[in-house]
Amino acid sequence: MSEQTRPARGMRDFLPEDVRRRDYVIGIVEDVYRHYGFEPLETPALENIETLTGKYGDEGAKLIFKVLRRGEHEASGETDLALRYDLTVPLARVVAEHRGKLPRFFKRYQIQPVWRADRPARGRFREFYQCDVDAIGSRSPVVEAEVCAAVSDVLVRLGFSDFVIRLNHRGLLHGMLESFGVPTALHDQALVAVDKLDKIGRDGVATELVTRGIPADAVERLLTAYVEPGGENLDRPATNERRLERAAGFVAGHAGGEAAVANLRQIVALSAATGAAAHLLVDPSLARGLSYYTGAIMEIAVPDLAGSLGGGGRYDGLIGMFSGEDLPACGFSLGLERILVVMTERGMFPPSVQSPAADVLVTLFDEEGVIDALRLAGELRTAGIRVEVYPETDKLGKQFKYASARTLRFVTVVGGDERAAGQVTVKDMQSGDQTVVARDQAAAWLSERTLNP
Amino acid sequence: MSEQTRPARGMRDFLPEDVRRRDYVIGIVEDVYRHYGFEPLETPALENIETLTGKYGDEGAKLIFKVLRRGEHEASGETDLALRYDLTVPLARVVAEHRGKLPRFFKRYQIQPVWRADRPARGRFREFYQCDVDAIGSRSPVVEAEVCAAVSDVLVRLGFSDFVIRLNHRGLLHGMLESFGVPTALHDQALVAVDKLDKIGRDGVATELVTRGIPADAVERLLTAYVEPGGENLDRPATNERRLERAAGFVAGHAGGEAAVANLRQIVALSAATGAAAHLLVDPSLARGLSYYTGAIMEIAVPDLAGSLGGGGRYDGLIGMFSGEDLPACGFSLGLERILVVMTERGMFPPSVQSPAADVLVTLFDEEGVIDALRLAGELRTAGIRVEVYPETDKLGKQFKYASARTLRFVTVVGGDERAAGQVTVKDMQSGDQTVVARDQAAAWLSERTLNP
Repeated sequence: MSEQTRPARGMRDFLPEDVRRRDYVIGIVEDVYRHYGFEPLETPALENIETLTGKYGDEGAKLIFKVLRRGEHEASGETDLALRYDLTVPLARVVAEHRGKLPRFFKRYQIQPVWRADRPARGRFREFYQCDVDAIGSRSPVVEAEVCAAVSDVLVRLGFSDFVIRLNHRGLLHGMLESFGVPTALHDQALVAVDKLDKIGRDGVATELVTRGIPADAVERLLTAYVEPGGENLDRPATNERRLERAAGFVAGHAGGEAAVANLRQIVALSAATGAAAHLLVDPSLARGLSYYTGAIMEIAVPDLAGSLGGGGRYDGLIGMFSGEDLPACGFSLGLERILVVMTERGMFPPSVQSPAADVLVTLFDEEGVIDALRLAGELRTAGIRVEVYPETDKLGKQFKYASARTLRFVTVVGGDERAAGQVTVKDMQSGDQTVVARDQAAAWLSERTLNP
Repeated sequence: MSEQTRPARGMRDFLPEDVRRRDYVIGIVEDVYRHYGFEPLETPALENIETLTGKYGDEGAKLIFKVLRRGEHEASGETDLALRYDLTVPLARVVAEHRGKLPRFFKRYQIQPVWRADRPARGRFREFYQCDVDAIGSRSPVVEAEVCAAVSDVLVRLGFSDFVIRLNHRGLLHGMLESFGVPTALHDQALVAVDKLDKIGRDGVATELVTRGIPADAVERLLTAYVEPGGENLDRPATNERRLERAAGFVAGHAGGEAAVANLRQIVALSAATGAAAHLLVDPSLARGLSYYTGAIMEIAVPDLAGSLGGGGRYDGLIGMFSGEDLPACGFSLGLERILVVMTERGMFPPSVQSPAADVLVTLFDEEGVIDALRLAGELRTAGIRVEVYPETDKLGKQFKYASARTLRFVTVVGGDERAAGQVTVKDMQSGDQTVVARDQAAAWLSERTLNP
């Protein structure tokens, strides 16, 4: 195919079978989120460029797609709009704008595409969907527990059992850095390096920490702290308790660090009552890239995927950047594409996801019969049956072949004889059986065999 | 609120009640389209700029949002991507790219936003959704009849009864222009003016036609031809037949014009067997702006909306612009925003569209009870009940007030006594009744009263 029929770099067309898989996952995500009382929100694809500026760090800023001004300003090369980079910053803007109309505890879900000019790679696209839940208005750890429970329920409903929700806290990260002698001014530098532990390993992080100016003995203490003495094969509650105690030791006497450990302890305790209990793992090495987190942070891992299925955390300061009034918030974002990659590789989709496009093909026997065929199609559709009409009066064999190729189960034929007798011949393409049905019984006969079989 | 919390000009945030109304309409559109055997397709928001170039005419080209190149090229002011302007051109690109994977008759629906830098006005936005159906691969008038039937079914299901599907044909337009003495080179100019008949009226169009160089006597004949001698109050089939006969008179001896009338006659005859019959009205003055139409064209009008609810037609040449191989195609696009405007003004939404965010509010009586409250919420959710958990241990009165404001029907309370006795107190906020239910019966008791009531 010629170059200009391809989608743009890093973007994809979704053919019907792709859309059905995506809709299946999105349907479950929405259903679970609704059962937690989250309500739907949608925001525009384009935001004023200032809305996104200064929210994603230097690395993020480079990946924003910017839209040229129009009309007389087009030649200036200036930009005034940008494509949505995540769903959290638009949420913060919406909450600041509509605060008066929203409930005191605003719980919203949002499933929309975002765009990042990242280098495309396996499972990394320039247009991808995020499935976000966020709860605004409370500092209670009940919020973290509910968000983790909701995300966990989604993954279990999709068929995942081996995922881990890694849990950490910005206060613990800072407390450990401070206790280990890293100057406050270098904390962000240190966290950028720590965030790469999964990708570049212990030695890589050590090198990068030193390069970024972190004192050598602090580097040593940090990396030692991140190696948990026991494995994860033990009883999960015991592992979490042991890790929390060890973390408490590192930040003893540091107020922020101790409060963080207490908060993590509450989240773990509350989660014991939810489906997340079996999946939650305290992990003091989890850093998360985004700069707006202020409290607990979470990230979901599965063994067969580098990178995460999603992540989230508490960001009590972001909404205040728009409204001037601080409003606590906590949320979680699942990456639809990552989930689809793993589900496809593992064959986790039920067969029903790929159902044929219709239940019945109405054939056209001859020109005289076309109007009657359209009438029959209408009767069947009124009865709830999904009907495709073959649009041309080709030879019947060709029309049957088309039905086979499309895996349509039933084919109707009304020739001159059937028309005269008020009958329809129905062929079951699975069994090969042909049945002659009275015309006024055709809808009932077919709906019995196609609806809720 | 400060300027920077507003959405960008011409764009909108959709709060939960807005999303629910939109999802209600989209759900019906999808359901009807699926019953006609249309399959879902999705394409990226961003297209290579060349994909869109030269497809929408000079006026359209000015409205395309263009994306600046990134990285080292950013300073150049050059653009390489553009936001989707409609769903038809991306479909043509997809069909050219994936022809081998698609069925011979590819029937797809696509419901996605498009972006146009138009001047915002009532009902006109810069980001808006189109709901398209298109059938690729056949020149049969069965396709036009099916597309009109599907769109008509959508509107009837939504509660519309007074819509008119105006039907015309490019071949009839050109045939009339030629028969009336308008040179071929001026046809496009003439059609741009004729397209404004609704907006600027007969005199406005007459002036514009003259300005665009159309001979005065041709202008007179054209506008006379567009005034139908009878009203529309007559029997619809008789009106259509009369209009077709009159049109046939205008293009007598003009091969293209006569073929167009014959094609329209077939579409009208086939539609007699579908739900579109009561709504279809032949209208030789319908022009449609887009340049890619080659055959029948359609547009839907309702009395209380200037402009249309949607439109479509046959475009047998567009796919060939991408693939080099001509492939016939015909489709229809419904404008979601226009439909929503009319439905909102007429109060056409069923009350069920705005259901509360949850069925039950689980309150937090005291700190000791929080874990148990989360467990109760989990049990209720497992039973299919939608549950919001109040996240803080505020005074119960405050929690009840919150439930009232959110119109949540039931509230659960588990205090120390209830916990000890293995009970839950449930308050029905509608009746005011309080009932004490055994803890292990709570899910059954509540699901009986909240699910499929």
